[in-house]
Amino acid sequence: MSQARLGRPQSLPFDTPLPLRSGQAFGPYQVMVETYGELNAARTNAVLVCHALNASHHLAGLDEQGQLGWWDNLIGPGKPLDTDRFFVIGVNNLGSCFGSTGPMHSNPATGRAWGADFPVVTVEDWVDAQARVVDHFGINKLAAVLGGSLGGMQALSWSLRHPERLHHCLAIATAPCLSAQNLAFNEVARRAIVTDPDFHGGHFYEHGVLPARGLKVARMLGHITYLSDDAMDAKFGRERRQELPLFSTQEVEFQVESYLRHQGDKFAGYFDANSYLLIQRALDYFDPAAEFGSLRQAFTRARCKFLVASFSTDWRFSPARSREIVQALLDNQLDVSYAEIDAPHGHDAFLLDDPRYHQLMRHRFNQIAQELAA
Amino acid sequence: MSQARLGRPQSLPFDTPLPLRSGQAFGPYQVMVETYGELNAARTNAVLVCHALNASHHLAGLDEQGQLGWWDNLIGPGKPLDTDRFFVIGVNNLGSCFGSTGPMHSNPATGRAWGADFPVVTVEDWVDAQARVVDHFGINKLAAVLGGSLGGMQALSWSLRHPERLHHCLAIATAPCLSAQNLAFNEVARRAIVTDPDFHGGHFYEHGVLPARGLKVARMLGHITYLSDDAMDAKFGRERRQELPLFSTQEVEFQVESYLRHQGDKFAGYFDANSYLLIQRALDYFDPAAEFGSLRQAFTRARCKFLVASFSTDWRFSPARSREIVQALLDNQLDVSYAEIDAPHGHDAFLLDDPRYHQLMRHRFNQIAQELAA
Repeated sequence: MSQARLGRPQSLPFDTPLPLRSGQAFGPYQVMVETYGELNAARTNAVLVCHALNASHHLAGLDEQGQLGWWDNLIGPGKPLDTDRFFVIGVNNLGSCFGSTGPMHSNPATGRAWGADFPVVTVEDWVDAQARVVDHFGINKLAAVLGGSLGGMQALSWSLRHPERLHHCLAIATAPCLSAQNLAFNEVARRAIVTDPDFHGGHFYEHGVLPARGLKVARMLGHITYLSDDAMDAKFGRERRQELPLFSTQEVEFQVESYLRHQGDKFAGYFDANSYLLIQRALDYFDPAAEFGSLRQAFTRARCKFLVASFSTDWRFSPARSREIVQALLDNQLDVSYAEIDAPHGHDAFLLDDPRYHQLMRHRFNQIAQELAA
Repeated sequence: MSQARLGRPQSLPFDTPLPLRSGQAFGPYQVMVETYGELNAARTNAVLVCHALNASHHLAGLDEQGQLGWWDNLIGPGKPLDTDRFFVIGVNNLGSCFGSTGPMHSNPATGRAWGADFPVVTVEDWVDAQARVVDHFGINKLAAVLGGSLGGMQALSWSLRHPERLHHCLAIATAPCLSAQNLAFNEVARRAIVTDPDFHGGHFYEHGVLPARGLKVARMLGHITYLSDDAMDAKFGRERRQELPLFSTQEVEFQVESYLRHQGDKFAGYFDANSYLLIQRALDYFDPAAEFGSLRQAFTRARCKFLVASFSTDWRFSPARSREIVQALLDNQLDVSYAEIDAPHGHDAFLLDDPRYHQLMRHRFNQIAQELAA
């Protein structure tokens, strides 16, 4: 059923510049969105889905190129987020590379591609841009905002910046800010990209090259942090590609090496290096506790209900990070459900169809639908 | 007391080629050693210390360049490994870059530097080369072999390859083999190095360049795995270098970024890229369970006493990996003491002077000294 076109992609133009946290105002700009299901007459059944690092507006079903949406296992007719009941909006964030205005587009001031001069965009800037998309559809209040990982940070930010415009916040496998270790991994990835001689200070477009070496290394590293140690051992262990040891320092010998190289190659073939840097920085900067004095203080402004979920083997954004969020919500007497799901897959679990996780999501969206009907 | 010359460095020439696990025979070759204290008349008080990735024969005191030895807090007069009682031998492994024959030296077959053609050396090859060093000093049986991390793997290998030639094995913060995650991190580091255009397939010497970009990225990544998440948070947190956010994707903004870059720069200034690749591969290949059928089966040949120690926050070689070793030793009714030390520093703890850890080491070396006197 999901192996068909489900969504309606469109590019929305915005003429009014968007004020950014950096102090700049950015625009005019375009935002790619894809919608699923039908908006009801009262415009109350909309769910906004926020993407993480390398995803897009294309959530479910096939796109024009025959690619399945990144959250197709969760979203669609009869699925936990049921597009027969909800009007689901996927948005590609500014600075990304799937159709919204980004660093590969022309900088009107120079006529050249923005490259590394594209303004630094933050989670808060994305959320404000998403609010304009919601305005475009004539929606006053969203039934829910949902996101995992960096998408979960956007969902949390919605509850702080536009508290009256959502009923439910679903923040999955996320954190209230990056830890020093998270920042450190991002810095290694960033160095791999910007020191690639083909990066050309971010203006590689006009040199007809791509910093593919750096981008591959960055992605390989990222990929390790998305998987649990146990999941990697279960999937690859120390399995070798060859019967006999090669005794080589450079050839691929272990299966896990081959897998990572494949992931890196695939990613470098479709993802933009400047977008990668921008989106990493948005992760780095997100820190409502710093913005408002404390996490507890930040959530004084929140009004919606919360579902926070984490996965036991996620070491990128561990359950302890989700519990920090939950504690700050409880400190504000907010309505919060917290699920710590025992799953072996690490951070990537939020993208997989673990039965307990999907049962939890189905139950929450059923509850939201009942509230809408009430 | 330790701020003086303590050791006696020397380069030992070996004319007989060393049979390697790869099937090659390597030699003639040189091994740099540094000794501390005096060998007693019975030649029974010798302790061999094996190094990890980036260390050397220079264990303690100052060298000619005024550099302090890498394990100076543990080794010296009156220290836990007391050079007033023991004859301590540090050895720089083959393929490394501190004086023993390595990839920067001339390949007699070509007259050029070995570069990436240097034979792949394994933990077992190093142990056999070390046994020849022990022979050179006329020592039949070592009082102990000590090592941490990759050095611990060498200590374990001694107990398997030369079981009658050591009384004690001290294996600290080590593992019976790399996990898939460990292998994966190594592969990312390797890709960073070999895809650096200045690597030139490992023959960068003759191009007058160094693959410094790749080596820096590799070291930064390695460094993250040496520290615990908590230690990084305690040391750097999200502290910024500037008062105001820079909103930049490329400038150093967080302290942890600055620290990592500094570590990378420093390392690339003294370490050889081919040595890095060789030593990583030695880590990758070490796997006595695969060699002998199982870890339990491997240790049937061991005869010495064991001290195994791990650190609670070490996520590179976690306590669980040490417990695998301990279980295999217990299965063979071997004499093993195991300490799981509650320390916040992660893998690097084995190089620090945590009081409980050093107390443990002091106690073990006192016991070894008493056994010698008995």
